[in-house]
Amino acid sequence: MSSNSFGTLLTVTTFGESHGPAIGCVIDGCPPGLEISAGDFDHDLQRRATGKSRHTSARREADDVEILSGVYEGRTTGTPIALLIRNTDQRSKDYTAIAQQFRPGHADYSYWQKYGIRDPRGGGRSSARETTMRVAAGVIAKKWLQQRYGVTVRGYLSQLGAITPTGHDWSAVEDNPFFWPVAEQVPALESYMDALRKSGDSVGARVNVVADGVPPGWGEPIYGKLDGELAAALMSINAVKGVEIGDGFASAAQLGTEHRDLITPQGFASNHAGGILGGISTGQQVTASIVLKPTSSLRLPGATVDADGNAVDVITTGRHDPCVGIRATPIAEAMMALVLMDQALRHRAQCGDVGTITPRIPGSIDG
Amino acid sequence: MSSNSFGTLLTVTTFGESHGPAIGCVIDGCPPGLEISAGDFDHDLQRRATGKSRHTSARREADDVEILSGVYEGRTTGTPIALLIRNTDQRSKDYTAIAQQFRPGHADYSYWQKYGIRDPRGGGRSSARETTMRVAAGVIAKKWLQQRYGVTVRGYLSQLGAITPTGHDWSAVEDNPFFWPVAEQVPALESYMDALRKSGDSVGARVNVVADGVPPGWGEPIYGKLDGELAAALMSINAVKGVEIGDGFASAAQLGTEHRDLITPQGFASNHAGGILGGISTGQQVTASIVLKPTSSLRLPGATVDADGNAVDVITTGRHDPCVGIRATPIAEAMMALVLMDQALRHRAQCGDVGTITPRIPGSIDG
Amino acid sequence: MSSNSFGTLLTVTTFGESHGPAIGCVIDGCPPGLEISAGDFDHDLQRRATGKSRHTSARREADDVEILSGVYEGRTTGTPIALLIRNTDQRSKDYTAIAQQFRPGHADYSYWQKYGIRDPRGGGRSSARETTMRVAAGVIAKKWLQQRYGVTVRGYLSQLGAITPTGHDWSAVEDNPFFWPVAEQVPALESYMDALRKSGDSVGARVNVVADGVPPGWGEPIYGKLDGELAAALMSINAVKGVEIGDGFASAAQLGTEHRDLITPQGFASNHAGGILGGISTGQQVTASIVLKPTSSLRLPGATVDADGNAVDVITTGRHDPCVGIRATPIAEAMMALVLMDQALRHRAQCGDVGTITPRIPGSIDG
Amino acid sequence: MSSNSFGTLLTVTTFGESHGPAIGCVIDGCPPGLEISAGDFDHDLQRRATGKSRHTSARREADDVEILSGVYEGRTTGTPIALLIRNTDQRSKDYTAIAQQFRPGHADYSYWQKYGIRDPRGGGRSSARETTMRVAAGVIAKKWLQQRYGVTVRGYLSQLGAITPTGHDWSAVEDNPFFWPVAEQVPALESYMDALRKSGDSVGARVNVVADGVPPGWGEPIYGKLDGELAAALMSINAVKGVEIGDGFASAAQLGTEHRDLITPQGFASNHAGGILGGISTGQQVTASIVLKPTSSLRLPGATVDADGNAVDVITTGRHDPCVGIRATPIAEAMMALVLMDQALRHRAQCGDVGTITPRIPGSIDG
Repeated sequence: MSSNSFGTLLTVTTFGESHGPAIGCVIDGCPPGLEISAGDFDHDLQRRATGKSRHTSARREADDVEILSGVYEGRTTGTPIALLIRNTDQRSKDYTAIAQQFRPGHADYSYWQKYGIRDPRGGGRSSARETTMRVAAGVIAKKWLQQRYGVTVRGYLSQLGAITPTGHDWSAVEDNPFFWPVAEQVPALESYMDALRKSGDSVGARVNVVADGVPPGWGEPIYGKLDGELAAALMSINAVKGVEIGDGFASAAQLGTEHRDLITPQGFASNHAGGILGGISTGQQVTASIVLKPTSSLRLPGATVDADGNAVDVITTGRHDPCVGIRATPIAEAMMALVLMDQALRHRAQCGDVGTITPRIPGSIDG
Repeated sequence: MSSNSFGTLLTVTTFGESHGPAIGCVIDGCPPGLEISAGDFDHDLQRRATGKSRHTSARREADDVEILSGVYEGRTTGTPIALLIRNTDQRSKDYTAIAQQFRPGHADYSYWQKYGIRDPRGGGRSSARETTMRVAAGVIAKKWLQQRYGVTVRGYLSQLGAITPTGHDWSAVEDNPFFWPVAEQVPALESYMDALRKSGDSVGARVNVVADGVPPGWGEPIYGKLDGELAAALMSINAVKGVEIGDGFASAAQLGTEHRDLITPQGFASNHAGGILGGISTGQQVTASIVLKPTSSLRLPGATVDADGNAVDVITTGRHDPCVGIRATPIAEAMMALVLMDQALRHRAQCGDVGTITPRIPGSIDG
Repeated sequence: MSSNSFGTLLTVTTFGESHGPAIGCVIDGCPPGLEISAGDFDHDLQRRATGKSRHTSARREADDVEILSGVYEGRTTGTPIALLIRNTDQRSKDYTAIAQQFRPGHADYSYWQKYGIRDPRGGGRSSARETTMRVAAGVIAKKWLQQRYGVTVRGYLSQLGAITPTGHDWSAVEDNPFFWPVAEQVPALESYMDALRKSGDSVGARVNVVADGVPPGWGEPIYGKLDGELAAALMSINAVKGVEIGDGFASAAQLGTEHRDLITPQGFASNHAGGILGGISTGQQVTASIVLKPTSSLRLPGATVDADGNAVDVITTGRHDPCVGIRATPIAEAMMALVLMDQALRHRAQCGDVGTITPRIPGSIDG
Repeated sequence: MSSNSFGTLLTVTTFGESHGPAIGCVIDGCPPGLEISAGDFDHDLQRRATGKSRHTSARREADDVEILSGVYEGRTTGTPIALLIRNTDQRSKDYTAIAQQFRPGHADYSYWQKYGIRDPRGGGRSSARETTMRVAAGVIAKKWLQQRYGVTVRGYLSQLGAITPTGHDWSAVEDNPFFWPVAEQVPALESYMDALRKSGDSVGARVNVVADGVPPGWGEPIYGKLDGELAAALMSINAVKGVEIGDGFASAAQLGTEHRDLITPQGFASNHAGGILGGISTGQQVTASIVLKPTSSLRLPGATVDADGNAVDVITTGRHDPCVGIRATPIAEAMMALVLMDQALRHRAQCGDVGTITPRIPGSIDG
């Protein structure tokens, strides 16, 4: 199994370096007949793109997707779908100074230790640039899930530094550059980010992602559990250091009588489980939360070593996000959508399509 | 890929239900020549076993491991190693009353929704009984990692309900039934657990697991990252609702200058990253933390429905742990060891053995 | 991926050595609800067993299958099905003399070269004993294919040394110990085998296996083609040195106008393709043929070397089949059935169940 | 696992249709540090290309390979290597007439049955155009095998219609457009092909491929056997209907004393086994032979049906090879090289590098 691929039946393989000729992906296993056009990718790629507000990296990503294969007369044919984006605004010269140094907190050091060679231009393969292709692949998964099962996947920023939302309004999320669910807090976030950018420092964040409409029965025990695969998929996003399902770490201090979700003939009475029991969806909303560490590439000098082991101070002069978490929302959505679509196909393989086994209990009250 | 298997080169496939004839596993890909005897499994299986203190389930697991294959004259031969444990103390009659009901918070409901049929005896396949085989497989991984690379994997309970350790002493961990790292707190934990058991309720917990001696370079970007695979492996443990690497969720409120681990010619100056950058080990201690939800099987009645959708109250009368987290420490160790061994083999395949690429920087100060 | 596993969605993992405590397998991914009992395995295991006529090895294989998991109240539950057979009639002493020698034509030498250690008892893992578990797993695949899609898989011996069938009568195949399709030739085969056994030599053979009722559309281009997977599955059987689909090697001398199967509104007019085009089934009979080399373990001495590289003559005194091909028919059937069931599940995953896409042309005239 | 990928550790994923914008592949798992430039691909792509002699399709394939990723300053970095070739000479108009018809013997019918939709331009995904990327990927495998282990992989045409070589001279193979190993027979082959092309018919062929220098120990029993994986890889080549290892189907009529390769202190005395015993290489030459059916796309009319089931006569007017086997030699070499490289990496993972386990017997006399 390629370590640059994920998924069992819906398989996504990505390739490309930040400042190489192009990035791309191959999506294999998509059912035939789905309508796909190059324009379908614009919306989510714009949501993920840098350069659209002053709060993200100044690199301008045009990100025009070319469909190279797998689509004929506007519909998927069942053969692999290859997507390609040319890299156009690389500015490799920004990085030459640090080619022989290891930025603290960055993958420079570990790639060099593993391979004995690395592409230093813009972080090479370890750059968040790679996540563009996840978002593109996720567009296909979102569309199929919506059309086939009515499933939607949405995310929002749930923490920025020490700031947390004072409420939750889905309609606010897409109206600010932070994917923040409370419109009133946006000015405060902007001030915070302006000060942070000025300081040269960066900060961590948290993103929540939820899926509505997931039927019960998706997920494969024991090592293909829905939550296990969500954990792998979300942890593989650059800078992510933790993943929670449902109540997550708060569960440590809960009693069993608090945590367990009672069931009534009308559905579940609560959703501490995040819509997953025993690794299988229950029909409730599937909820996950991730944390992203602060960007490691900083203008503020930091002690490190060079490739010869000498002590040096490193300053990163390229264009970087002061908070990588801000743009992570569409990436997290994409990863959840891809996992769900893969599990939907696997469930259909073993158990027949949803509906074959009649669920006798409404999925949930809130879901 | 079997969903009851995990690992790419070191592959573990488990089978068996809680109250079926037996549980077992097949471990494939182990290098030849490793000394293994049935007695090697005793220590960790005893650490995981129920029935050894009043704080865990009263079910007595004898857990005698039979080696069915893959070992000749005391050494592995490179062929698959099959391990078998007969189930002896099942008491199926405890469960008959609830065969038609869904315990809230339990996989009863989701298995039934997925498959339309389920083995209700002791939770069937969804029982934590399955983790016995993970621990057994982990024994082999621990032994190989230790002998081949000097890597050790250890864990401890880092939260029980609202109680957290007031210090950290590895030498205390194995001297109490909780794997607690502070000897002085043990009496308080015992009182807490006695009261909890008496109340009929259960509580959540947190377990930390760390690996010492991991060389730099293990882990495969992008979708085979060391942290991504740890997340999947740990989240697949029964009742786990969250996984952190390094500083985990605390990273959300950190600044970049706080979080990044500076590097000196003598090694790393801190380890907020948990020993992993870009999905690849850095040579520092690899650290992970997991949360386990409170046991869902309770003596206290809870609202649910039966298979016909009627409202009923369910009471679980079987023998259950009031805190499943207590016995999770050896399970989490096993999962980390299995992931590390698999990554070690994959690294050796692509990049040659450790030592081929000379690391010029000491792994870390603290590691 | 374990190299002792095969299949993508229906995954079979086998374990065990010829003279170890037991052999077994884990079958994962079987749909829930299929009726399975231990008795279901008797028929095909008897067909494969040694010791039932004088023309096969004198080793008596009782081969009682124990179902360890995955079946509840007589039906599959969707969880892994583990099957176990204890080895009872091993006679390890037969093999001690050759533990330090490499039988020419046998895997002794290559296992030792690969692993530096080997289990010499009865060929260890390389023994045809392993194929018992393929046959057992195949029983489940055959039953599911028959019940779900009306597919049947049958085989016969199509060459024994230089002897080929003079006709074809399915009703004769199960009435003689050779699976030979012409009753009148059986006495000649018996005489031939008696003389061969007396001489101490062995001989090669050919087995044909065919599937009827396979709907069009099974098989996954490009590297999961139905014929590619059949080739891998059949070549993995001990002693197999070649695999053909349809007309196979005869195609080399055919013209395009001879080979292509014309299509009429009533179906295909011929079946040179063996029911597969572009790696996908056409709805015709799927046909394959394999060749098995003569047994390498002979009573007649042969030049070889010992583990120290010294020239020695080896004589094999254990019980061996003078023609391994004779018992290969049920094994080949099992492998074809397992490949078909796996492809059926994969097709259902990506394209929905058979019937969703309406085929407008009758599958074939002859199929 | 993507069905458009193959390999376990060296994974090749291909994409693209015959007349779409481009074809390409992603090669993952290549060790770092291998020198690769775009020019490396020219030689083998030219060997495979159409349009270079009158005996192959008139389509002119320029086949300029663009390296999109995974190579930095001329060396592989260990990250995925993406290769792209734009399709430039498609002439889609040739195919419009047959978009609603199924060419007999072609994948048109089975793709349509499977997916309910197909790209009719030039055979779409089922076109032999896809094999271009196998050859490109094979270039990398050949180079690595040669540099790392001194392994070479070579092939030749071993049958064209009823014509077979009268001798074997490796030096002749690359000096004629047929890869024929006997220079004196080439004029006769040219006359044969000229007459065939004039007739509008096509013919089958056979290709042999051999690897020299393979060390003992490569191959993974039981379901990852070297011969099993070669069978799958070779059978997946368009038009292949059979695969043999070593003596192949001739083994059916051999006695054990004829077939078994005796061993002397100087090495093996013969190579009926084709260099593989028990699925593991012995150190001898690895030999395989494949058969390719005659091209199904013919100028001569053939009975078929259209998508509505009506009887029609189909004539293929596009440019096609009268014998697809002629260009299959470099494709077969590529597939063997890719399988060997993958097995070399897997062997290194489990057993350490070649040399760790000292083989005490010279690999072979002839190898």
